[in-house]
Amino acid sequence: MFDDDVPETLRPYRKVAVIRVGRAGDGPAPDLVAVEEPLEIRLQDQPFAVIMRTPGDDKALAAGFLLAEDVIESSDDLGAVEHCRHPDQSAAHNVVNVFLRGRALEDSKRRLAERRNVVTNSSCGICGRVTIESLRTRAPVVPITWTIAKAVVAGFPATLRSRQRVFEGTGGLHAAGLFDTHGVCELAAEDVGRHNAVDKVIGEMVLADRLPLGNHVLTVSGRTSFEIVQKAWLAGVGLVCAVSAPSSLAIALAEDAGITLLGFVRDGGFNVYTHPARLSEV
Amino acid sequence: MFDDDVPETLRPYRKVAVIRVGRAGDGPAPDLVAVEEPLEIRLQDQPFAVIMRTPGDDKALAAGFLLAEDVIESSDDLGAVEHCRHPDQSAAHNVVNVFLRGRALEDSKRRLAERRNVVTNSSCGICGRVTIESLRTRAPVVPITWTIAKAVVAGFPATLRSRQRVFEGTGGLHAAGLFDTHGVCELAAEDVGRHNAVDKVIGEMVLADRLPLGNHVLTVSGRTSFEIVQKAWLAGVGLVCAVSAPSSLAIALAEDAGITLLGFVRDGGFNVYTHPARLSEV
Repeated sequence: MFDDDVPETLRPYRKVAVIRVGRAGDGPAPDLVAVEEPLEIRLQDQPFAVIMRTPGDDKALAAGFLLAEDVIESSDDLGAVEHCRHPDQSAAHNVVNVFLRGRALEDSKRRLAERRNVVTNSSCGICGRVTIESLRTRAPVVPITWTIAKAVVAGFPATLRSRQRVFEGTGGLHAAGLFDTHGVCELAAEDVGRHNAVDKVIGEMVLADRLPLGNHVLTVSGRTSFEIVQKAWLAGVGLVCAVSAPSSLAIALAEDAGITLLGFVRDGGFNVYTHPARLSEV
Repeated sequence: MFDDDVPETLRPYRKVAVIRVGRAGDGPAPDLVAVEEPLEIRLQDQPFAVIMRTPGDDKALAAGFLLAEDVIESSDDLGAVEHCRHPDQSAAHNVVNVFLRGRALEDSKRRLAERRNVVTNSSCGICGRVTIESLRTRAPVVPITWTIAKAVVAGFPATLRSRQRVFEGTGGLHAAGLFDTHGVCELAAEDVGRHNAVDKVIGEMVLADRLPLGNHVLTVSGRTSFEIVQKAWLAGVGLVCAVSAPSSLAIALAEDAGITLLGFVRDGGFNVYTHPARLSEV
């Protein structure tokens, strides 16, 4: 179904090895995941913003992003829009360089000068980190100090759903929950933003001075992105359990972080993407 | 199912009037939507960041956000965390003031000084706009110049889904598509981020010098937030068609923008939240 002659770095999906649990074809299996990679948008060759995206239509993405951010108003403001051509840039496919014209060019000079002060430690989850290299946050690898029965963790999404009071009425909310290793749901929160739901349950534990959360499982109602795993890692969470699919970068980060990452946790089964040693049969 | 004695400003859901089309109970009906509102996080009473969220657990959200942004490392860095108490602040429930301590306090002084330069026109979709008042972007109201048959627009999500090549394999991608008023899908894009999918299709039209998109329908595979409607507005799109629920702020913004907003477009029916005049029977 996919074109095998497209270079791997430009494909929107990637093959990964998973362990299937609790459904037909139990055991190791190949799987396809959507690729998530940072795209660095440069203005006149200077770093401007980094957004996490699926490769493909990168130049259009850059143009649409700059329109929404009020950097450009129409194509009149755009000169060349092209992928990075620096031969020493190994991640050139993840860099789009935009050359502006006229008023947009003048305005951008001012903006870039301003941004130079906020390159590091900006308050934004993504956009403040203007170089791809700076995206991975440093935190200690989460040690494996306990196991949890596969059947117990398989039930977490249903428990979380039962605590979603607002979703039932509106159909519009993401949820996140923190479970202990005995399977008890200690906290749950809902939000229109899935990152917010995660921030709410982890933040509650910060306020209660209960970090690190090495003995907790984070369960989320949707997909798992780089940022969700990053938030789990910073809080010291050892296992992330998601109802839907993880991205390629979520898997890569969970691998580095020592976090057990489960996806498609539904109908009594799930896929294990990383660190299966935290899962036991009973 | 909900507590009617909770003040309306603090409830995570809100009642709205919709028009049901193509399913049991056709016609005007009440509906519940998830509330989306901006939360301004202040450090020592100075604006630091604005995030769109569902009210509730705001102090926990602020703490979790500051942890993920590396502003704090643990509760040791936190002094008081409280909702704004200024009596002249009408949106006080949407402002959380965080007082830091020790090293975190020292670091935050430097950060706040840096941010003063980027209050306006930051490159970030949300976090750069550090006051709630500045969130609504100025654009002309989209005029109603055409109508589209209800049965045609009801079929857009299925068409979009048929063009999602990667989702089928991975289950992990959002999609956005631009349809013309005859029902033809001109462009479709996929991405792990739903905002990116929208930026990709709109950006493609920017590159082709085809803005404003007054004669186009934007169809999205998921929920509709403030930001999705904002992007549609900036591109001049007249109708937004979503498979899932809109947030309260998406509806409010679509109303102001003159945009027709449809939600739960599935199984041949949908809900109309704003400006039904663009819909015709045949």
